[in-house]
Amino acid sequence: MTISHRRDRLRRRLAAVDLDAMLVTDLVNVRYLSGFTGSNAALLIRADHDVPVLATDGRYVTQAAAQAPDAQLVIERACGPHLAGLAASGGVRRLGFESHVVTVDGFALLQKAAGDGVAFVRAAGTVESLREVKDAGEVALLRLACEAADAALADLVAAGGLRPGRTEKDVSRDLESRMLDHGADGVSFETIVAAGANSAIPHHRPTDATLAAGDFVKIDFGALVAGYHSDMTRTFVLAPVAQWQQDLYGLVETAQRAGREALRAGAVLSDVDGASRQVIADAGHAENFGHGLGHGVGLQIHEAPGISASSAGTLLAGSAVTVEPGVYLPGRGGVRIEDTLVVGSPDSPTDTPELLTRFPKELAIV
Amino acid sequence: MTISHRRDRLRRRLAAVDLDAMLVTDLVNVRYLSGFTGSNAALLIRADHDVPVLATDGRYVTQAAAQAPDAQLVIERACGPHLAGLAASGGVRRLGFESHVVTVDGFALLQKAAGDGVAFVRAAGTVESLREVKDAGEVALLRLACEAADAALADLVAAGGLRPGRTEKDVSRDLESRMLDHGADGVSFETIVAAGANSAIPHHRPTDATLAAGDFVKIDFGALVAGYHSDMTRTFVLAPVAQWQQDLYGLVETAQRAGREALRAGAVLSDVDGASRQVIADAGHAENFGHGLGHGVGLQIHEAPGISASSAGTLLAGSAVTVEPGVYLPGRGGVRIEDTLVVGSPDSPTDTPELLTRFPKELAIV
Repeated sequence: MTISHRRDRLRRRLAAVDLDAMLVTDLVNVRYLSGFTGSNAALLIRADHDVPVLATDGRYVTQAAAQAPDAQLVIERACGPHLAGLAASGGVRRLGFESHVVTVDGFALLQKAAGDGVAFVRAAGTVESLREVKDAGEVALLRLACEAADAALADLVAAGGLRPGRTEKDVSRDLESRMLDHGADGVSFETIVAAGANSAIPHHRPTDATLAAGDFVKIDFGALVAGYHSDMTRTFVLAPVAQWQQDLYGLVETAQRAGREALRAGAVLSDVDGASRQVIADAGHAENFGHGLGHGVGLQIHEAPGISASSAGTLLAGSAVTVEPGVYLPGRGGVRIEDTLVVGSPDSPTDTPELLTRFPKELAIV
Repeated sequence: MTISHRRDRLRRRLAAVDLDAMLVTDLVNVRYLSGFTGSNAALLIRADHDVPVLATDGRYVTQAAAQAPDAQLVIERACGPHLAGLAASGGVRRLGFESHVVTVDGFALLQKAAGDGVAFVRAAGTVESLREVKDAGEVALLRLACEAADAALADLVAAGGLRPGRTEKDVSRDLESRMLDHGADGVSFETIVAAGANSAIPHHRPTDATLAAGDFVKIDFGALVAGYHSDMTRTFVLAPVAQWQQDLYGLVETAQRAGREALRAGAVLSDVDGASRQVIADAGHAENFGHGLGHGVGLQIHEAPGISASSAGTLLAGSAVTVEPGVYLPGRGGVRIEDTLVVGSPDSPTDTPELLTRFPKELAIV
């Protein structure tokens, strides 16, 4: 059973740092470790005990039992404090808590509920670091999310959805609607459609500006399926294409390939960023690529690991990450190409990453 | 100038509780007090000084200058700690902070940056309580949001959008698309469309279930305009209508009117809830109305004040609130009728609340 396996990994970590239990209050982490998706919940996981305690309120009795059948269920509105009290009465002495999520006021309530016998220990990012490595069920959902996005973009292009006269907002709505048609529960984030000079703005919000002949059209978007996010960017040209556009596109394409090829389990994260960044720097555009190369993706659109020049650590087999270099020429236009991939295992015959976003990356002149 | 007036109100409150300054880190509150909408920001407001300091990072230089022209701008990634340090070096001794928002880890960084000379004072909810009373600019935006929702629902009904055979999801997408057509920037929250027995689930998520003759169809939705949320629920019947449906609808309609009529500046919040709830209880349905009567609405879909049996305090002139009683008969169906209104001023010739959601409330059989 996948979810209990996730808890087993957490329990081993707790034991390793001498924690008796962990109080999980971040709702995404609660979902990851229990399956429960309600909007008010907390989870208590003991290092020495297999059955977690899930607290939620009366709205969710049925849903919690269905989604988290192997948890002991407690119905109580003040979820975190209640579980802190339960931990105390159950003999927990060292209790990990999510100090990057719990507020100052919330922490005061936890301490009051637990009393003097419990030492609260900061365990920020503990569950997030487990989430960095995806299990088979998670990869399957990421595949579905990426497939919905691929299919929606293919439909959009086939239907002539990228043509002069349409606004950025038109294209954004059209694409989002097609993702829903292909089974997405929603969008991963607000779709970016940036035409012409707007394509030089890395995170542009769609406007009423119209697409025109000769424009770059940069589209960064994703589908949400069962809580998992896809993330992909493609940049098109509306005919006619100019030489500088072909050159810029070719540069980013080469840099993106270099980034993908650097994705190996054990690779130093800043080296992965560097592999792609160096291509752009060599072409004299270092200052026109002002963001990191990529990030983890899963139950959140941005999660561990970050892949940038300042990232510490190495890439893990089974992480799902984006590779998204871009070069932005202010006032003229910009190109970004982004894929979501799963890093391969060094144990497999080939440790090539699995490409989840399969829409073609060759320059498309539409 | 409206936004500086908001800060003046805050500064008077700071002076009243002997705070030298307030560090605002909640992004909605930063927006309210500065106009800035970026995703990384903090704001320092001194009791004795008119010009606030706005910190944000390098992505937002242009946007911050445009949106918050009267603030002193500081470009710095670690916004909160930087402003805490600035407060310390500027002689602030008692610094209010948003203890309901700042995390335990974030607070440690603030304390480290400020050093020993600064006493941090919990000021949870201070800005939220200012936001309870809307100024003229806010009411204008709420009107626009409610008008977009009204127009979208009118279009949907006129186009025959509520008919047997369509799924709840179809109706939801159709309605959301029409809100965008009418100028909404997005939706206020995930649209609820609940047909037949599903209408008895207060917060149902749209499914592939199809609408059928004789169904209640409950629709709870809202438009987002320039950061302001509308909130409205209407319940329709797909012909033919049954007597029990007419009776249930009439009961909720009467209860909703009683709630609206109780909206007066100075009214005790729990009495407003009671005015509507009593109607339902008198009809023997007390246990079928399991949620509060309403809530404030503005830059957030749920904000102060709450209007329920357990709410403390009184209603303020100029608050924008919902009135949304419902009666839910499990397995059969339910009715909720919800408006957004602005509470009138006792100084005006009539202190009748202004109704923002103007779509008709008479039972519509479609």
